[in-house]
Amino acid sequence: MARIEKWYEKVGDCSDVVCSTRVRLARNLRSYPFPAHASGKQKEEIAAKIREALLSGNSILADTFSYLPLENLTEEEAVSLVERHIVSPEFISDRRGKAILISADESVSIMINEEDHLRIQILREGLSLKGAAEMADRIDTLLGESLDFAFDSEFGFLTQCPTNLGTGMRASVMLHLPALIENGAMSRISNNLSKLGLTLRGTYGEGTQVVGGLYQLSNQITLGLSETEAVANLNAIASQLIEEERRARKEMSASIVLQDKIDRAAGVMKSAKLLSANEFMELLSYLRFGLSTGILHGVREEELNTLSVRVQPATLMAREGRSMDQNERDILRATLTREICAKIKE
Amino acid sequence: MARIEKWYEKVGDCSDVVCSTRVRLARNLRSYPFPAHASGKQKEEIAAKIREALLSGNSILADTFSYLPLENLTEEEAVSLVERHIVSPEFISDRRGKAILISADESVSIMINEEDHLRIQILREGLSLKGAAEMADRIDTLLGESLDFAFDSEFGFLTQCPTNLGTGMRASVMLHLPALIENGAMSRISNNLSKLGLTLRGTYGEGTQVVGGLYQLSNQITLGLSETEAVANLNAIASQLIEEERRARKEMSASIVLQDKIDRAAGVMKSAKLLSANEFMELLSYLRFGLSTGILHGVREEELNTLSVRVQPATLMAREGRSMDQNERDILRATLTREICAKIKE
Repeated sequence: MARIEKWYEKVGDCSDVVCSTRVRLARNLRSYPFPAHASGKQKEEIAAKIREALLSGNSILADTFSYLPLENLTEEEAVSLVERHIVSPEFISDRRGKAILISADESVSIMINEEDHLRIQILREGLSLKGAAEMADRIDTLLGESLDFAFDSEFGFLTQCPTNLGTGMRASVMLHLPALIENGAMSRISNNLSKLGLTLRGTYGEGTQVVGGLYQLSNQITLGLSETEAVANLNAIASQLIEEERRARKEMSASIVLQDKIDRAAGVMKSAKLLSANEFMELLSYLRFGLSTGILHGVREEELNTLSVRVQPATLMAREGRSMDQNERDILRATLTREICAKIKE
Repeated sequence: MARIEKWYEKVGDCSDVVCSTRVRLARNLRSYPFPAHASGKQKEEIAAKIREALLSGNSILADTFSYLPLENLTEEEAVSLVERHIVSPEFISDRRGKAILISADESVSIMINEEDHLRIQILREGLSLKGAAEMADRIDTLLGESLDFAFDSEFGFLTQCPTNLGTGMRASVMLHLPALIENGAMSRISNNLSKLGLTLRGTYGEGTQVVGGLYQLSNQITLGLSETEAVANLNAIASQLIEEERRARKEMSASIVLQDKIDRAAGVMKSAKLLSANEFMELLSYLRFGLSTGILHGVREEELNTLSVRVQPATLMAREGRSMDQNERDILRATLTREICAKIKE
């Protein structure tokens, strides 16, 4: 069977600044309590119904999905799902009664029995809000043909957390903003965004750190705004940020201090024998910066994206099929990094 | 005229551990007060006599010397003499009445009117105590033919500072001891050496810091011990230290942590656009370590020695013939370093 390319191995729009786009829909089945209050047996029924609705749905989409009960996964496989942004960190902390449906290219996934019965998630390369929202809509429609979603004519889709009421949609883009960090503009930008109903978060979502200059920009409001309006709004703001980041990079690209940091990062990526996950992300940020400003050449954005998924701690171990201590991981991460970065040129 | 190779451009014995050997003799003229108490006119007379004694000496040696009154030098040229270990930092702090005689290959120099009337200094590549002492003796003999040195049958040669009384000789070797620093053995070694009448000092002599793993090992005792005994004693101890350093390197060379540091150092040297003098010395230490353990290849020890002289702050400026700010120096240092280090291979 031919290997199916993962979504992050493709190059997307505005990929100099946008690493990925994510849209997720929260849905619940009308005749069951929310997962927090459902019994084990009820969760099993919920999972079975969702699986059935997707896999027997009369759509070409259904062909490509795998169904994974979370209890069947090793710790490495489960954490690797978080590292690949397929599931939330909370989702794998207690795995009982939970399952995940994943498409072969990992661009569509459905978390079953997370906070809501279903969390439909679409991941896309680059800036692709409209495309991702349309795909989410197709999956939603497909599932809605056989599932009875909890829906209120006044509030819209019902969700466990009131902040998701209404469209149940959250859309986000993962932005790489090293120049706006470097020139100190981020705190101003972050304040302005919250006034517009948008929020900037760390790399792995709410309450997480910013790693390697990556920010998640997402919509906050799900009530009183259609999916289309929310997506258009987010798209407009993201586009402004992208332009601002590009301007800042251009202004900065003649700076010898920046060139030094970028060329050193490439030098270390080409030569290190040990590389921690955090250092990797910080160096990667400079590499991306260098490629987008033309200071570096020879490696493609999507190769770096693939590498950055591949070298995450649990993903490394899941692919090796064994547990590894930190030193072993740092050695393997450095080896994989040297292989990809050997071709980088100034 | 053919360019004369400098002493530090040659490869010497034990050059994996020993950067250079230095022997100096302190001498004074009988009929003048020590420089601290001499008048300007007396210092002029002293300088003229020494110059005359050397340059009109009936020896082939005399051909290659330049005479430089310190007052004729720019600040950069003067500091560059310190960086090349030709003169002491104190020698250039007040330049009145002082002069220096330097051989074309910079291996022989005579400071005039430093603490003593003459400080004859021999610098040699690698471990070469016997050779350096013999050369010092030849210069001493040559000068002694026409100069009347202050000598006491009981105390030997008279010097301003009593610690130099007797032979007036101090011999030292510049040792590169990164492995003994890394494995924590240096404090034990330093204590033992002082019991043996030897002393370990920083890179630029008494009271200076250890830079890039470089230590100056020198004899302390000048009284009651002949030059030959002192040199043999220092040579024996240096040889022990060299063996100890080599063993430590061998034990350490399989360590991935060390390989990582060495390969990163090479990576940074090949790619940095800005390089401070201190960082250069620290990275150079890892490069030398890497070459001696076979982790790195492609560049010769003496090329690195030449580079390390070339990139010192004042030497950089003296060769450019102009004053440069720190940023300009860091850029030029990085450029010269990349040129030499481009050929380094793992």
